[in-house]
Amino acid sequence: MPETASEAGTLFRDETVRRILGKYRLLWALGHALSLMGWDLETYMPRAGVKDRSTAAEELEGLSHRLLLDPELDKLLREAEEKLDSLNVYERGVVRVLRRAVRIAKAVPEELARREARVTSEATQVWKEAKKKADFKMFKPYLEEIVEIQRRKAELLGYEDHPYDALLDLYEEGLRVRHLDPLFNELVPATRRILDRVLTGGFYPSRHPLEDQGYDVERARAMLRRLLDDLGWPWDRGRLDESAHPFTIDMGIDDVRITVRYEGRDIKRAVYSLVHEYGHALYQLQIDRRLAYTPIGTGVSMGVHESQSRFWENVVGRGPWFMGLLSKRLAEHLGLRLEPLELYRYVNTVRPDLIRVDADEVTYNLHIYLRYILEKKLIEGSVMVDELPQAWDDMMEDLLGVRPRSPSEGVLQDIHWSHGSFGYFPTYTLGNVIAAMIWRRLWSGSPELLTGLDLAGLRAWLGERIHRWGATFPPLELVERSLGGKPSAAALVEYLEWKFLRLPGELEEYLPRG
Amino acid sequence: MPETASEAGTLFRDETVRRILGKYRLLWALGHALSLMGWDLETYMPRAGVKDRSTAAEELEGLSHRLLLDPELDKLLREAEEKLDSLNVYERGVVRVLRRAVRIAKAVPEELARREARVTSEATQVWKEAKKKADFKMFKPYLEEIVEIQRRKAELLGYEDHPYDALLDLYEEGLRVRHLDPLFNELVPATRRILDRVLTGGFYPSRHPLEDQGYDVERARAMLRRLLDDLGWPWDRGRLDESAHPFTIDMGIDDVRITVRYEGRDIKRAVYSLVHEYGHALYQLQIDRRLAYTPIGTGVSMGVHESQSRFWENVVGRGPWFMGLLSKRLAEHLGLRLEPLELYRYVNTVRPDLIRVDADEVTYNLHIYLRYILEKKLIEGSVMVDELPQAWDDMMEDLLGVRPRSPSEGVLQDIHWSHGSFGYFPTYTLGNVIAAMIWRRLWSGSPELLTGLDLAGLRAWLGERIHRWGATFPPLELVERSLGGKPSAAALVEYLEWKFLRLPGELEEYLPRG
Repeated sequence: MPETASEAGTLFRDETVRRILGKYRLLWALGHALSLMGWDLETYMPRAGVKDRSTAAEELEGLSHRLLLDPELDKLLREAEEKLDSLNVYERGVVRVLRRAVRIAKAVPEELARREARVTSEATQVWKEAKKKADFKMFKPYLEEIVEIQRRKAELLGYEDHPYDALLDLYEEGLRVRHLDPLFNELVPATRRILDRVLTGGFYPSRHPLEDQGYDVERARAMLRRLLDDLGWPWDRGRLDESAHPFTIDMGIDDVRITVRYEGRDIKRAVYSLVHEYGHALYQLQIDRRLAYTPIGTGVSMGVHESQSRFWENVVGRGPWFMGLLSKRLAEHLGLRLEPLELYRYVNTVRPDLIRVDADEVTYNLHIYLRYILEKKLIEGSVMVDELPQAWDDMMEDLLGVRPRSPSEGVLQDIHWSHGSFGYFPTYTLGNVIAAMIWRRLWSGSPELLTGLDLAGLRAWLGERIHRWGATFPPLELVERSLGGKPSAAALVEYLEWKFLRLPGELEEYLPRG
Repeated sequence: MPETASEAGTLFRDETVRRILGKYRLLWALGHALSLMGWDLETYMPRAGVKDRSTAAEELEGLSHRLLLDPELDKLLREAEEKLDSLNVYERGVVRVLRRAVRIAKAVPEELARREARVTSEATQVWKEAKKKADFKMFKPYLEEIVEIQRRKAELLGYEDHPYDALLDLYEEGLRVRHLDPLFNELVPATRRILDRVLTGGFYPSRHPLEDQGYDVERARAMLRRLLDDLGWPWDRGRLDESAHPFTIDMGIDDVRITVRYEGRDIKRAVYSLVHEYGHALYQLQIDRRLAYTPIGTGVSMGVHESQSRFWENVVGRGPWFMGLLSKRLAEHLGLRLEPLELYRYVNTVRPDLIRVDADEVTYNLHIYLRYILEKKLIEGSVMVDELPQAWDDMMEDLLGVRPRSPSEGVLQDIHWSHGSFGYFPTYTLGNVIAAMIWRRLWSGSPELLTGLDLAGLRAWLGERIHRWGATFPPLELVERSLGGKPSAAALVEYLEWKFLRLPGELEEYLPRG
C-alpha cells in the first residue's frame, strides 16, 4: 500500500488544485460519514433510531451543499480552469468533477431541493402503500408533483436538445437523448428477434424447478462467504452483510461493503445478487489509492458502475466457465448436486415477464426501453401522469407480449419514481452495453481469462483499464479510451446473439466435465 | 413518543436560546456521525479502513472545534447570559453546557490540541508495546511529554486552588481537589478497616473455582441476550455487539449501543460487564426525548454516568436479589447449576490484588486513590515521571499489601495516561459514591424495589430522579437535588459496611429459596 500523502503529491502538483483538494477534504469526510450512516440504516440500526438518523443526515447534507456553494471554492475552480492546459489528467479530473458538482448545486435553489426531499420522502411511503393496494390513484398526485419538480429542475439545470438530457446527465455525465435514441432503435428490434429465436429454440428454459426450491439460510450464508473467498474478496477491506435490498457502498477505497438478501427459495437469486454487488465493490476496491480523499477517488458514473456489476453477474457468473465452481459450492454447502449443463440452464432461464428486477439478460433492456420512453414523454409533457398506467400496459404488451393484471406489477413496480429518480433507468442499459463491450474486447483479445475462469487475470484486466482511473475521465471518454469505441447497441447485440443463439451449440467446449 | 419539535417548543421558548439551538443542530449531527464512526471502528469496520476512518474523524472533529469558536455563537451565548434569570432550567442548562464547551475550546489553542492528539496517538501504540515488554523506559519520554502538555493545559484552562482542578473539571464539571481530598481521607482508612474484617471474616471468598472454568461462547451470547431481555432492554432502540473492550455509545436518545467481550472463561466477567454497560445505556435511553438535538440531551458527566453503571452492576447485579434470576439463566443456557448462596459468593469474591479492572467493590477505590495521588503530584510537579514506578509500587504495597513484580501489573497497567486522560480516574470513585447514595435512598425509602428485584420500578425511580434531566443541571447540583446531599464518603462507607460486614448474617432474608 503506497503512503497516500507523498504518493498523491506526485499526482497533484498544481498549487491551485492542491488548495482545491484541501478544501475538498471536509466534503469527503462528510461523504464518508453519510455513507456509513446509510449503511448502518439498512443493516444494523435499531428501528427507532430512524428519526435521529434522518435529522443528522439532513444536517450533514445541508452542510455539504453549502460547502459546494462556497465562493472561495468557485474562485479556485475558475483559477484552475484558466490554466487547464497546463494540468495533468488527474488535476483536470478534479476540476471537472467538482465544477460539475458546484454547477448542479448552484442550479437547484435550496427551496426546490427541500421541496423535492419532502415530497419524495412522503411519496416513497405512499408508493409502498399504493403498490400493496394496487391503487395507482393514491400515488398519482405525488407522481404529478414529482414530475413537475423534475421538469423545473431540467429547466434550471439547462440542456441543448431535450429537457430529459438535463436529468440523464445527473446520473451519467454526458449521456443524452441523442445517444440513447439510436441505441434503443437498434437494440430493441434486435432483442425481440433474439428473444423470438430463444423462445422457439428450446435450449434456454423459461422456468426451472429449482426456482421453487427452498434452501437453508444459514448454509446459504456460509456458501456466499465461500464464493466471495473464491472471487478473491479482501475481508480486511470489505464486508458482507444483509439488508432488505442488496447494495454496495464504500467508505473509502479500503472499506467497501456489500449486502445480500436471503429469500429462502431459488438460491440463484442470492448467488447472483452477491456476484452483482461484488462487481460494484471491485470497482471501488481497485481505484488507485493515490486518488483517496479527492473527488475523482470514486466510480465515475452509474452506467460504468453498472457495467462492472453486470459483467461479473452475467458474463462471468452466468457464463459456462462459472458452472464448475458454482456446482461445487452448491454441492458442498447445500447438498445440491447438479450437472454443469443443468446448472447452466437453471441460472439462464429466459422468459418475457412483467417484473424488471426478475428479468433475464435478453428481456431486461426491453423493460428499460419502456421506462426510457415513458420518462422522456412525461418530462417533455407528451404523456400525462393519469395516462401512464394505460401507456405502460400497452407498451408492455407490445414489447413483451404480457399485460399486467394490476398496477402493482405494472406502473407501480419500481421505487425509482417515488424517489424522483428520472433519468436513472437508462444507465442500467448503458451498463449492459459497456459490459458487452468488455466481453467483446476480452473475447477477441484474451478469451482465456474467461474460458479458464482466471479471476485474478480478470481483476487485473478491469483494474488496469477501468477501475484504477476512478472519475479521472468523464464516463464516455473512459469507455472510449479503455474499450476502443463509443457505447452503442452493436456490442450488446453481438453478445446476446453469441450467448443465446450460438453458444448452446458450443457449450461442451466451455463447460467443465461433469 | 412525543413529537419532538412541538414538545421541545414548550421547553425552549426564549428566542435567543432557540437560535442557539438552531446553531447547535449541526454540532449535534457531527457528534452523531462521530459516535457511529467510533462504534463501527470497534465493532464491524474492516481492518484496513482505519486510515480513512481516522482521516474522516479528524476532519469532522476539526469542524466541530471551529463551530464552537464561531463568534456568532459566542455573541448569542452572551446575550442569553445577560438574561439568565428570565430563563427556565432547561434554557439555562443549554447556555451553561455550551458556554463550558466554548470556554474549553477557546482555552486550548489548536496547535497544542494537535500536538496532544499526535503525541497521545503515538503514545498509545508505544504503551501497548511497553506493557507487553514490561519496559517502563520505553514509555517514559512519552509520558513526560504528556504530563507537560497536561500541565500547560491546566494553566490555559485556569483554576483557583490546584492545577489538577482544571483537568478534573474536564471530566466532571465542578469537581475539585477540595472535594476529593476529604472524600478520600475518610474513605481510604474506612475501606482498609472493612477490608481487614472481610478478609478475616471468612464469608466472602478471595477466589472461587468457577473463575477458572471455561464456557461455550455461543451459549453465553444467547444468555446475555436473555439477560438483557430480563432487564427490559428495548431492542428497537438499542443493540448488543462485541468489541475488544466493552463500551456504551449513543447515537441519540433512541439509538444506544452496548458491547461486551467473551473471554471464554469465568462467566461472571461477561455477565457483569453486560450489566455495567446496561447501566450506562439506561441513562441515555431514559433522557427526556424533548431534550433531543440539544447540548443537554446527554449524560451530564463521567461520574454520574459511572454511578449508573456501578449501581446496576454492583447494587442490583451483585446483590442477593439478583441471584435467583442469574442462577436460572446460568442453568438454562450454560447448564451451570448453583445454589443462590454459592452464586452470591462466586460473584462477590474480595481480594487485594494488583489490577484495577479486576478489583472488587471493597478494594476498587484504593486503586483509584493511588492514581489520584500520583496524578495530583505529577501535575503539581512534586513527583517526576521517572520516580513513578517506585512511587506506584510503594503505595500499592502500603494500601493493598501487594507489590507488582513488573511494571506491566503496576504503573503500565492502564491505558488512560497514554490517552492524556489525567483527572479521569477520580470519576470512577465518584461514581461509586453516587451509586451508594442511590442505594441509601432506596434502602431507606423503597427497599422493596431492590429486595423484590422490581426492575421496572428501579428504571422508573432512576428515570424520574436522574436520567430524564440529561445535562440540565451541573452534576453536583443534580446529585444534591435528586439524592439529597453532596457526594461524600459517608454513603459509600455505609454501603460497604452493610454489604460486606452485616449482610452475610442477613442473607437468608434476601436470597431466593434454592
